[in-house]
Amino acid sequence: MSSQRFSGVLVPVITPFNEDLSPDVEAYVTHCKWMLEQGVDGLAIFGTTSEANSLTVGERIQLLDTLVENDVPADKLMPGTGACSIIDASVLTAHAVNHGCGGVLMLPPFYYKAVDTEGLFASYSEVIHRVGDDRLRVYLYHIPPVAQVPIELDLIERLVVAYPDTVVGLKDSSGDWDNTKAILDRFPGFSTFAGSEGFLLDTLRNGGAGCITASGNANPAGIRKVYSAWKADSTTADALQSRISEIRTTLQSYPMIPALKAMTARFTDKPSWALTRPPLMPLSDEQVKGLFSDLDAISFDIETNGDCVSV
Amino acid sequence: MSSQRFSGVLVPVITPFNEDLSPDVEAYVTHCKWMLEQGVDGLAIFGTTSEANSLTVGERIQLLDTLVENDVPADKLMPGTGACSIIDASVLTAHAVNHGCGGVLMLPPFYYKAVDTEGLFASYSEVIHRVGDDRLRVYLYHIPPVAQVPIELDLIERLVVAYPDTVVGLKDSSGDWDNTKAILDRFPGFSTFAGSEGFLLDTLRNGGAGCITASGNANPAGIRKVYSAWKADSTTADALQSRISEIRTTLQSYPMIPALKAMTARFTDKPSWALTRPPLMPLSDEQVKGLFSDLDAISFDIETNGDCVSV
Repeated sequence: MSSQRFSGVLVPVITPFNEDLSPDVEAYVTHCKWMLEQGVDGLAIFGTTSEANSLTVGERIQLLDTLVENDVPADKLMPGTGACSIIDASVLTAHAVNHGCGGVLMLPPFYYKAVDTEGLFASYSEVIHRVGDDRLRVYLYHIPPVAQVPIELDLIERLVVAYPDTVVGLKDSSGDWDNTKAILDRFPGFSTFAGSEGFLLDTLRNGGAGCITASGNANPAGIRKVYSAWKADSTTADALQSRISEIRTTLQSYPMIPALKAMTARFTDKPSWALTRPPLMPLSDEQVKGLFSDLDAISFDIETNGDCVSV
Repeated sequence: MSSQRFSGVLVPVITPFNEDLSPDVEAYVTHCKWMLEQGVDGLAIFGTTSEANSLTVGERIQLLDTLVENDVPADKLMPGTGACSIIDASVLTAHAVNHGCGGVLMLPPFYYKAVDTEGLFASYSEVIHRVGDDRLRVYLYHIPPVAQVPIELDLIERLVVAYPDTVVGLKDSSGDWDNTKAILDRFPGFSTFAGSEGFLLDTLRNGGAGCITASGNANPAGIRKVYSAWKADSTTADALQSRISEIRTTLQSYPMIPALKAMTARFTDKPSWALTRPPLMPLSDEQVKGLFSDLDAISFDIETNGDCVSV
């Protein structure tokens, strides 16, 4: 893996399905390349937004192989490799390392609840030892609303002390700025990403690395502009942040994953993009109409995915 | 699969590990056979107590193959086959059907939270159609404290109406008698199992099928006696129920899975039985001492696992 840490705007890539619910590999590669062309700094494939836990281990391995075979640069990839089983997590993580991925985003094992720090530390530790590769860079994935197994600050501390060159960052999808701020304050130098672009500028100004955000699937260039403006110390940063937050707020009033897929179906003129794997369901026709109308009301151009850069 | 429904006392079998955390196949087969010799009516292998979600799909397939190869009767087996991915659930379920298992106990996909009835119905429906075998018998697995994805009564209703010969029962591990009672009242003829022997007699007296209970790993004969007494309309049933509830209460004051493994380690004189896969951790030495002392205080003989029947 690259010794370069990730920073900027990463996108947890939505996963397209064929009618039989198998992954649509061609549409997937096209979408990944399009996002990189839009300027995003990395692709956090196999995240929550990717319906990755609805995929099998074999499907995830095959999709990553396909991206690499199709010249998507591995160092731009941060695959999600967490799983309920430490064996599955180890297999997926080793596979990512062997491809030279820039890092992995690792959920804790999420079936058992109310497990203690000791058990979660042992889980991460087992995976790191089983992979046994200096190139491994782990970004912890804190998403308590979904995983229901939080990554508390004391666990981060233990992991960073034990594996300072391996456990290098975290995505905070708690939606709780106080938690993100607490991590930023306690672990300077750690690569902390906000889980939403709503906190992008705040995260950057407090020493964070950027954001990894679902809505980057639909508005990558717009979100990336905030990062560019901040880096250039431009006075436009706050206005750009307000704009992406406005778009986020609209998206969030719908189930996010099917909403992003509905937008991508329209943008690419490929209706099958709207398919989801159960238990997730596509938006109803009425919801799609409402979403498009709401986006129109805030002047978000669905046909060009917002501030789409022509490539 | 057998057309005979399960009833009585089933046990979600604990899974032994070797020092490298691979499943200890020999100890597993021995334990399964011992429980059947103790009179339990079935083995709900790959349940929560089995740390099944900490196993890979391949490990579960191999363990089931091994049991059948070692003459554990398939019609006594109710493997857990639910998974986050409907593809994994379909593969595991088809494998169980092909072995002639008496049924499967199926968790809902449990990564995404707050999914609606439509999405959960679609998940079960996809698995049933993908397996596409008349022999399939599905027992739904409702365990909201762990899965955090409940199986509401309206979902049961939809599934029973759509698949009356396939969706035949449920294990209620909510720990909420009012919920069990509501299911028993609304779905007479449905094979409803309590998730704890604490509700065994109440479940039977309200038309339920029995219980599927973790503590059956340590006190199978004692729990089975309640079922026998109820069937025989014996006046001893309530006293026997009080006794197993007393034992349950003691066990429940420790983390249940490592506690059962610690007891089995002692009973079998095989220390590795105490091993768990992270994120679960074995009891501390102090906890083990406390557990054994508490069991001693209620005259539960650890050396013979309670009311162990000599075989």
